[in-house]
Amino acid sequence: MSERATIDGDRLLADLAELRSIGAQGTGVHRPAFAPDDRRAREWLRQRMQDAGLDAHIDGIGNVHGRSAAPRAVLSGSHCDTVPAGGWLDGAFGVIVALEAARVLNAGSGSDSGSDGVGLDVIVFADEEGRFRGTLGSRAFCGGITDAELAAATAGDGARLADALAETGWAGRPITRLDRNRYVAFLEAHIEQGPVLEAAGDDVGIVTGIVGMRRTAVSFHGRTDHAGATPMAMRHDAGAAAVEFAAGFVTEMRRRAGEHTVWNVGALDLHPGFGNIVPDRGDVVIEYRDLDADLLAGVDDVVPGLVAAAAERNRATHSIEIVVKQPPLATDARLMTVLDAAAERHGVRHRRMPSGAGHDAMIVGYHLPTAMLFSPSIGGRSHCDAEDTRPEDLVRTAQVFTTALGEVMRSVS
Amino acid sequence: MSERATIDGDRLLADLAELRSIGAQGTGVHRPAFAPDDRRAREWLRQRMQDAGLDAHIDGIGNVHGRSAAPRAVLSGSHCDTVPAGGWLDGAFGVIVALEAARVLNAGSGSDSGSDGVGLDVIVFADEEGRFRGTLGSRAFCGGITDAELAAATAGDGARLADALAETGWAGRPITRLDRNRYVAFLEAHIEQGPVLEAAGDDVGIVTGIVGMRRTAVSFHGRTDHAGATPMAMRHDAGAAAVEFAAGFVTEMRRRAGEHTVWNVGALDLHPGFGNIVPDRGDVVIEYRDLDADLLAGVDDVVPGLVAAAAERNRATHSIEIVVKQPPLATDARLMTVLDAAAERHGVRHRRMPSGAGHDAMIVGYHLPTAMLFSPSIGGRSHCDAEDTRPEDLVRTAQVFTTALGEVMRSVS
Repeated sequence: MSERATIDGDRLLADLAELRSIGAQGTGVHRPAFAPDDRRAREWLRQRMQDAGLDAHIDGIGNVHGRSAAPRAVLSGSHCDTVPAGGWLDGAFGVIVALEAARVLNAGSGSDSGSDGVGLDVIVFADEEGRFRGTLGSRAFCGGITDAELAAATAGDGARLADALAETGWAGRPITRLDRNRYVAFLEAHIEQGPVLEAAGDDVGIVTGIVGMRRTAVSFHGRTDHAGATPMAMRHDAGAAAVEFAAGFVTEMRRRAGEHTVWNVGALDLHPGFGNIVPDRGDVVIEYRDLDADLLAGVDDVVPGLVAAAAERNRATHSIEIVVKQPPLATDARLMTVLDAAAERHGVRHRRMPSGAGHDAMIVGYHLPTAMLFSPSIGGRSHCDAEDTRPEDLVRTAQVFTTALGEVMRSVS
Repeated sequence: MSERATIDGDRLLADLAELRSIGAQGTGVHRPAFAPDDRRAREWLRQRMQDAGLDAHIDGIGNVHGRSAAPRAVLSGSHCDTVPAGGWLDGAFGVIVALEAARVLNAGSGSDSGSDGVGLDVIVFADEEGRFRGTLGSRAFCGGITDAELAAATAGDGARLADALAETGWAGRPITRLDRNRYVAFLEAHIEQGPVLEAAGDDVGIVTGIVGMRRTAVSFHGRTDHAGATPMAMRHDAGAAAVEFAAGFVTEMRRRAGEHTVWNVGALDLHPGFGNIVPDRGDVVIEYRDLDADLLAGVDDVVPGLVAAAAERNRATHSIEIVVKQPPLATDARLMTVLDAAAERHGVRHRRMPSGAGHDAMIVGYHLPTAMLFSPSIGGRSHCDAEDTRPEDLVRTAQVFTTALGEVMRSVS
């Protein structure tokens, strides 16, 4: 790591501020995938890439590609869509860091851009947050989504992906796929979205892996009855079944959890939802995540039994839908070492940590050596307007990341 | 019970059908308190009472009073408002039975109407279902609601009682109060709203008491966090707190329940309600009912501890609101005996049973000797368009009830 490319911190922060203004909502950002502000953001990013000397285009799924002139490249980027009423850094940070790194690392380019025939390409993936489908853009980039799935995809509000794409004007363009002959690695910078770095007093997190996750939707079906006039033994109580299952799941997870295991009962709805009516429907959404595939599989094995027992005890019927079943991804050991060294080089306090959130890197990581670098999140807040990171942390993380990217480019060539 | 007044079953069923047509919605009825259809129903009932020889008026809270000419009277009636998209018999049955009984029992009236100076008065209480406040009309009749409470009452949709009353044209009229010198007893006929009579093969239920009930709203407050990126020990998880409390409540009720104890977790809402966000709010509505005041008090005593423990374990805060705290009401022993005898007289299979639902009789019962007679509900269904009772059951119940009313009138005079 002899050479050292220095980023322009002010330029980085100015770009972040300009991107933040597109869809700004108070201190947060509302930029759902393919909505007008997401389209504007992608067109602005395409132009910014072009201005940085990249050959840029938006493809048929809305991914923005900025291609360096070199025959081979390291790929870096993230996404620019947000959850509804989301934050200004989730995704945006990794996109702008990659753009700034490309400016610095591809400098003095031409056909021999970057270091000895290895350039830095930038990518902005579409719909990472899953308005239509989680990590849609990276899945499409890696060839993991069929045309039939794309045609059928709809948002929670009933909007069709096909219609949303048609409105952007990008529908019908080819989808640019991952070129395995070109790309040697993928690195993504991201905010932590959790409180670990801040609580530990560390500056950056070098991601050891992205946890595998399950999201499972369980529905119990019973019968509405008057909650005063119907004896307990004659009820078909979908509400009690939902409550008992959810509590049993929490107990089971507490018993099985390893150091980094996390879980959530994020949604529980009882229908019709009145105090004096026995619910005829109870819908529960559970999630559980870990780097340990065996631990996840163990929970997978017990959930159906917990559901069936809760249903039977309350004379309800049930259905189980596995909404997400994502295996864990271990990040690349050599890339982690490069990130460690870059942090040391800049005198930055670093720790290795798993990513509890899913990222585009998880999808690309099945196809390319992949790594991630985390910047601290103030108060651990994310997916809301309180999402924030101190400017010095943003610049510090971007510098470590850029130094590492340069080292990866050099080491390959 | 030497004399026997015979009702006109066809007239009873025709009146029920005509009342059903006001606000009919499929096989059910949508007649929320003070809405135009409820107003029409009350004006129709007032005219029907007048036609039956009663001196009828609608008072300032919407109660319809039909007064016989005798100086003292037995009072009978129910309500004609329904829950949204409710059934055709809940309330309506007791009103039409009282009307038919008045026709039969006050016959040959004049100043000496009914039996030896004791007449039968009919009443139709307002808003029993609690659009603005449960058993509003009977509470106002018994003097149990202050003017300030009436002025402040609002519906779930934000509508003000004062505005709703003004629209009916009844606002400003005096509220006719219970006259203790006039009334000797209150009897209410009602559908069971549960499956007990049908399952037992009995024709009528003689109500031993109306269960006391509690409705308690518990809210847990935490913090939204990313459900993947936030370690379990750093969460303030209002969702887990709500789930654990609700499940703990169910377990506690199972442990404490007597033969007739019932309970319900009718509503449980997690906010914001996404699988990947730790809920910052969990709202639970619990109910529990029993004839045994001590059992209810025992549960009252443990609920705050269950709430606090669930909150503490999940680092959430909590609040508890007791929405309804209604003591149980034992019905009058002598009136029950009269109902037993009337059932025997007509060769009708009868059983004594508690009422798990609240009724206007519960309110009036604190002030007058009170009894209730139940007619079977098909499939135990109520508060929905499937609410129904076989015509022969309706007529049979009305006949037993009328015979009993006549006996009470005779026994007093």
